[in-house]
Formats: sequence, C-alpha cells, structure tokens
Amino acid sequence: MSSSELHSLGLTEVVANLENGILIVTLKSSRKMNSFTEKMSHDLIRVFRWGDVDDRVRVIVLTADPKVPAFCAGADMQEILKGSALLGRQEENEDEHRDPGGQVALAIYNNRKITIAAVNGHASGSGFTSLQLPFDFRFIWAGAHITLPFLRLGILPESTSTYLLSRLVGESRATSILLSNAKMQPSSPNLSSLYQEILPNKDDVLPAALAFAKMIAINSAPVSVSYTKGLLHHPGTSIEENHLLDSRAIKRRGASKDGAEGLKAFMQRRSPNFPDTVSSESSSWYPWWKPRDVSHPNKSKL
Amino acid sequence: MSSSELHSLGLTEVVANLENGILIVTLKSSRKMNSFTEKMSHDLIRVFRWGDVDDRVRVIVLTADPKVPAFCAGADMQEILKGSALLGRQEENEDEHRDPGGQVALAIYNNRKITIAAVNGHASGSGFTSLQLPFDFRFIWAGAHITLPFLRLGILPESTSTYLLSRLVGESRATSILLSNAKMQPSSPNLSSLYQEILPNKDDVLPAALAFAKMIAINSAPVSVSYTKGLLHHPGTSIEENHLLDSRAIKRRGASKDGAEGLKAFMQRRSPNFPDTVSSESSSWYPWWKPRDVSHPNKSKL
Amino acid sequence: MSSSELHSLGLTEVVANLENGILIVTLKSSRKMNSFTEKMSHDLIRVFRWGDVDDRVRVIVLTADPKVPAFCAGADMQEILKGSALLGRQEENEDEHRDPGGQVALAIYNNRKITIAAVNGHASGSGFTSLQLPFDFRFIWAGAHITLPFLRLGILPESTSTYLLSRLVGESRATSILLSNAKMQPSSPNLSSLYQEILPNKDDVLPAALAFAKMIAINSAPVSVSYTKGLLHHPGTSIEENHLLDSRAIKRRGASKDGAEGLKAFMQRRSPNFPDTVSSESSSWYPWWKPRDVSHPNKSKL
Repeated sequence: MSSSELHSLGLTEVVANLENGILIVTLKSSRKMNSFTEKMSHDLIRVFRWGDVDDRVRVIVLTADPKVPAFCAGADMQEILKGSALLGRQEENEDEHRDPGGQVALAIYNNRKITIAAVNGHASGSGFTSLQLPFDFRFIWAGAHITLPFLRLGILPESTSTYLLSRLVGESRATSILLSNAKMQPSSPNLSSLYQEILPNKDDVLPAALAFAKMIAINSAPVSVSYTKGLLHHPGTSIEENHLLDSRAIKRRGASKDGAEGLKAFMQRRSPNFPDTVSSESSSWYPWWKPRDVSHPNKSKL
Repeated sequence: MSSSELHSLGLTEVVANLENGILIVTLKSSRKMNSFTEKMSHDLIRVFRWGDVDDRVRVIVLTADPKVPAFCAGADMQEILKGSALLGRQEENEDEHRDPGGQVALAIYNNRKITIAAVNGHASGSGFTSLQLPFDFRFIWAGAHITLPFLRLGILPESTSTYLLSRLVGESRATSILLSNAKMQPSSPNLSSLYQEILPNKDDVLPAALAFAKMIAINSAPVSVSYTKGLLHHPGTSIEENHLLDSRAIKRRGASKDGAEGLKAFMQRRSPNFPDTVSSESSSWYPWWKPRDVSHPNKSKL
Repeated sequence: MSSSELHSLGLTEVVANLENGILIVTLKSSRKMNSFTEKMSHDLIRVFRWGDVDDRVRVIVLTADPKVPAFCAGADMQEILKGSALLGRQEENEDEHRDPGGQVALAIYNNRKITIAAVNGHASGSGFTSLQLPFDFRFIWAGAHITLPFLRLGILPESTSTYLLSRLVGESRATSILLSNAKMQPSSPNLSSLYQEILPNKDDVLPAALAFAKMIAINSAPVSVSYTKGLLHHPGTSIEENHLLDSRAIKRRGASKDGAEGLKAFMQRRSPNFPDTVSSESSSWYPWWKPRDVSHPNKSKL
C-alpha cells in the first residue's frame, strides 16, 4: 500500500489516492472556491513528482472536490493582498521570481506518465493555465465557466500558458483566448479542441476520465508512453532529425522485453503485461534534450 | 484631438479616425475594388506605426469602405503591369526586394496594441495574406469570397503568409489554403478557425468588431497586452525558458501601478483605470527578442 | 510514354501510372491487407523520388487496390516476427537503424510536387503515420477505421509522426491521437482537420482526389508549388526572416517566364501554360535550408 508514502508528502490542499495504477489527485483547498495558493502549488509539485518516479503509477488524474462549485477559482486574492509568492515577494528581483503556477505546469508537462485533468467545475486564471493546459488529456463539464481576468487585473497570462496554448491549438485560438478577457464555455470554437470530452453533467466528468485512464493503463507500455511524450514535447528541429530520434527509439523498444511481450500478447489476443519500468529505463542518449532545472534562481537564469 | 496629427501622415488610400481609444482605419483605395497599391502599403505602415506609439490608441480596427464590394481585391494588376514595387522593381536584385505586403504584415503583427480586421467584403491575394493574417482578431462577413490566385499567376503566397498561417491554424490547414487555388468561404473548415466571428450581414461586421474592441479597450491594461503579445509572438524556445520569461513579467506587472489598480478595481467591482503607458514602459530585459529592422536592403540581409 | 521508365523501377508492391501530369501510385502488397513491408517502403521511396524529378509529374496520388478492405494494415507482423528491418535488424546498433516508414515519410514530405493521399480503406499504424501524415492533402472514406497499436505493442509511434502531427493539427490533438490507443474515425474531432474531404462511399475517394488533382495540375505553376512547399516546410525562424525569404522568392517568380505567362493568361481569362520546370530551377539561394541526407547511418548521425 502506498497510502503511508502519500501521507508522508504532507499534503494539505490536495488529497491523493493510488488505485490500480491510477493516481487520483483531488483539489481540496482550505480557501474558498478551491482557490490556488502557494501551499497548493507545493502539494501539486510534490504529488506529481512522486507519480513521475513511482512505477506503480501509470496515469495521474487531477480533479476537484465535487462539493465545491469551482474546479479552481485561480490565485487566492487574500494571499495576493498579503503579498504572497503568487505574484512574487517584495524582496525578490524580477529575475529571481519563479511563478508558482508555472512550477506546477512544469511538474505536470514534464511528467513521464499519462496525465489527465477532470475539470468538474468552473475555472479561472491558473485554474485554466496551470491546472488544465499542461495535461495530456482534458475532460470537462459543459457548464464550466472559463474566465481569464489577467489583463483586467493589470498582470498577464502566466504558468507558461503563452507557450503551451499556441502549441496546443495554434496561435489564432491562443491569441483569442488570452487577449479577449471574456467568459468562455468549453464548447466555444476557440476552446473545444482542448478537450477530449465535454460532458453535460458535472458528476460524469471524473468517471469518464477514470474509464479512459483505465483503458490506457491496461493497454500502454509505460516506457513507450515516456518516449512518445518525449518526442511530442522535444521533437527534432527538422523532420530528418526527428527521423533519427524515432528510428533510434523504435529500434530500442522493438528489441526490448516490452516489445516481445507486446507482440506476443497481440498474436495471442490478450492484454499485455509489460515488464519494463520507467524508473529503470536508461540509455546513453535518453533524454536527448537537456532538462533544465529552473526551480531556483541560482540554478538557472535567462 | 488627433485629427490634425493623422492628417499630417499624408494618407490617401486609407482614412483614419481615433475615437475612445479605438483607431479605425478604413481602406479607400483610389483604384477599383480597393486593390492593394504601393501607396496603400505606405499609408498602412504609417498609420499602424502611429497607433503603436500613441498611448491614446488601445485598439486598431481595419475595415473597408462598405460601398465597395471588395474588402480588398489584392495587388493592383495595372500597377503590376507597369512594373511597380509590388513584385519588385526591375533594377532590384532578388535580395534587395522588400515585399510591400510583407512590410504591412510586419507593421501589424509587431504592433503592441490589439489589432482587429473587420472584413466586410470579398478578399483576394494580399487582401487575405497581408490584411487579415497578421491581426490579433478577425471578424468577417459570411458571404465573403476568399481567393488566392498566387500559383495560377506563376508567383507564390507572400506577405509572410507561409510563416503566419501555419502558426495560426497548423500546417494541415495552411497547406490546404495556400496550395489549393480554390475559391473559399469563411465558414469552410480550413478557414473558420481564423475568425473570431462570422457575420451573416456585411453591415454587421464593423459594429461587431467595434463592440468587441470597446470591451477590450475598457478592460485590458495596455502594457499587459504588449507583454502578452510579446510572449505569444516570441515564446521561450522551451517551456522552461518561457517560465523564466513569464515569471519575470508577472513579477514586474504584479508590482506595477497597473497591478495595484487592477486588483483594487476588481475588489471594488468597478472598471479599472490603468495609469501605465506602453510608450514609457522600459526595462533592461524588454523586449527579450532582438527586433530586426528589415525595412531596407542595407539594414538586414539573410 | 513513361510506362517503360516506371517499369524499370522494379516495383512489386505498388503499381504506378502517369496520366495527364498525375502520377497514381496504388498499394498492392503481396501480403494480406496491404500490410507494410520493407520492399513496399523501397518501392514507395523509388516512385516518389521519380515523381519528384520528372517534370511531367505535377501531382502524385497514393491510393490502394479497392478490392482489399484495408488501405494499409500497418507493418507486416510476419515480417516483424522474422526480424525484418521494420523494427531494426539484430546486428544494427540503435543509432544505425533507419525506420523504413520514416524513410517513406521523408520521400513524400520532401517531394516538390503536390502529394495527395486517397485513403479508400482502413488504416493501421504506418498506414496512418507513414502513408497519410506526410502528404499535402488527404482524402478519406468516412467508414475507415484508424488504429494506432504502437503503445499496446510496447513500441512507439514512428515515421516522424511525433514531428508531423503536432505541426499539422497542434499538440493537443496530436497527443490525443498518439497516446490514446483507441480506434478512431476520420470524422472524430481529433482527426477531421487532417482531411480535405471525408467521403461517404469508399469508391468515391479516388475520383474525388483525382478531380482535385486535375484542378491543381492545370492551374498551378510547378515551380511556384515547390517554393510554396519549401516556405511551408522551412519557414523563417522569425516573421522578419520569412519576409526576407518570401520577398526574394516573389521577386524571382514575378520576373520569371511563368510570372509573365500567369499574368497574361489571367488578363486573357484562359488557362496558363507554364514554361518553367522544377528540374531546371536553380539559384544561388534555393534551397535556403540545408537538406540532410539521413538515408544511411554513415551519412548522418545525431
């Protein structure tokens, strides 16, 4: 059982449970409307990193306490008024600040496991930028309101949203979403391509996400997932370079124990049982990109 | 009043008016069907640059004289037959030519204010590539015909359209649009994601664009807009680098006068009144990209 | 007549015919369900390269024998079980392998002629990644099943699909398609933007593709097509650099024989008859990217 390990993470703003390879992380903020706090960012980073390295975890699903109307109402205004880290501490220089929403986004986007957001309520600010965009899949309630008040607050879209949104849906829609300041619905043309499924009832969002997660957890080799995500997030700078990268990866995976088991299970028309693990996967060339630690100002600057 | 300043720009192919922070630029070519001429390109560059630096301007809207059936019929054929600058002057070398449609596209795309195209008529050639793609938002009449005759004329899509279109809507649709040579309608699947709104009546296009412009002009901090556009157009080369860029920007904006006013107005449920101005915004790191002057051959070559 | 030349290519897994500027390549595998074999990859590379250099070829259309239910069932399992080159030969090092599906993808994507996939049957694995994604246009039967069993087989999506799919339709849909392991239909929101047309009847796919091909073959200057594809696949790294690239190209094409003929035909309202040829087009700056030969391990490594 992993409950004791999860307990040792000291989570207070989220609840985490691991069952059948699926790690369910539930936002349960001590503040109103699940608003995003500095402590919530720490909890999320910790639990997503734990899910990244623990081989029992195949899929990570983020959702919110269904009793709260909001999935996440964005940065907690009370904390901001008190001068929290959310907009930077007074004593920090501009190049020393590390946006907490962005730190969470990195922990999710760089995760080697499949990540799914099950958005079962309204979302504002970082409830969209940090807690939806960096995921592999997004499921959402059709009635959710998406609001991005950044420009009205005199600040700007954070959590790497200017990077992620253009990549995810193209610059035309990214610009519309980030500059328009309007209340949006998941089914609006600008937003809809972000979502794997838009569900009419709030209570159907998590079950739909979990059924999908289960299907993936059973059928996908975890190491294959990590290579595929690596190639999607760090493709070659040309089609030729990508061809060299995926040729190397397919040769490696084809000759792996997983590759033999996958082929055997396919011929025998049964579910595969993959022996290879993400934590023990290593080669001279993986990862082929240079992971950059930007967690602290003294580690990396522009 | 700014009318005398606008008058001093010597505009003949466009008409410009500034009202309540919205600069309306109306195409009114001396040639048939609002066709695109070298002088029109000079007028557009001048007026968009003026809008970029004048702090009274919050949004720039481009539209056309509603009495002309075409929003813009593309490059003026008579001018081309006379050997104008549109396809390059005879005495220029290949690397000396600066495509006028591209120069206009740069003046629009690099503008720090919100830009909106209100396409209230048919559009051909540069009427699409130069006068629609570089904008932040596009509103269009449902009955507009979009035609791109480049390949049939033995030339090729210009005005940086091969750069912009793939970024805006992805390479699948960009390729379809630029290689297919067909007459298209705004609601066609390849085009529709370019448009914020597609309006059934020609005369509804400008009012819809202006209502949207007004909503943005009231609610968005101009300096926040300029940073957001900067991040969308010049994102980090990795998610980590983007995180460093937007962390720095959010720290700066959070500590700005605009940030204080935005938060105060939000708590008091009133419209914000932002004191910071784009023209006086400066810091050691903004802009973080190296703006490249390509206006003249002697300034920059490949 | 070109039939003798095509015959000399030694094709066994595909049939090729050139008629009115359109090269039709038909998959006719010696294996069940048109499955993808090493020999098929050699045939496809050979015939697409031939089409690239022969000036009579304006458009290349790939389709499948309509009597076979599958357009292409993906890598041939019998060949894989025998240890074919498809997943790499045992004696190869990881950096020596060149994925055959990727080699085909390069021959299609880098082709200077218009390429069209007419997918008239089910498609699995490389039948999607290698034989659909690298094309300029895709036509498909609405009833086609698209299945990507890579992760279930313990391997990963190949044929440069991680590079192409994000570029074509954005990372949100690319991730959904490549990580979800599910059976998909062409009309599903994740896939539909890949297709120029989705046809209700299997037998309508090739005729629709050919009608479209004919329209393009008549109206487009081949050299203009090659420059446009070059700019779409190798755009400038900034809008300014792209402006320099397309300014140079438009000056060159405007002053070409094709440019004169295109303008003349346009004024005379007749079909153009372009004299310039792709094979004889050369200049000091075209191509502006450095083509990289990755066909053999000793030619290029990461």
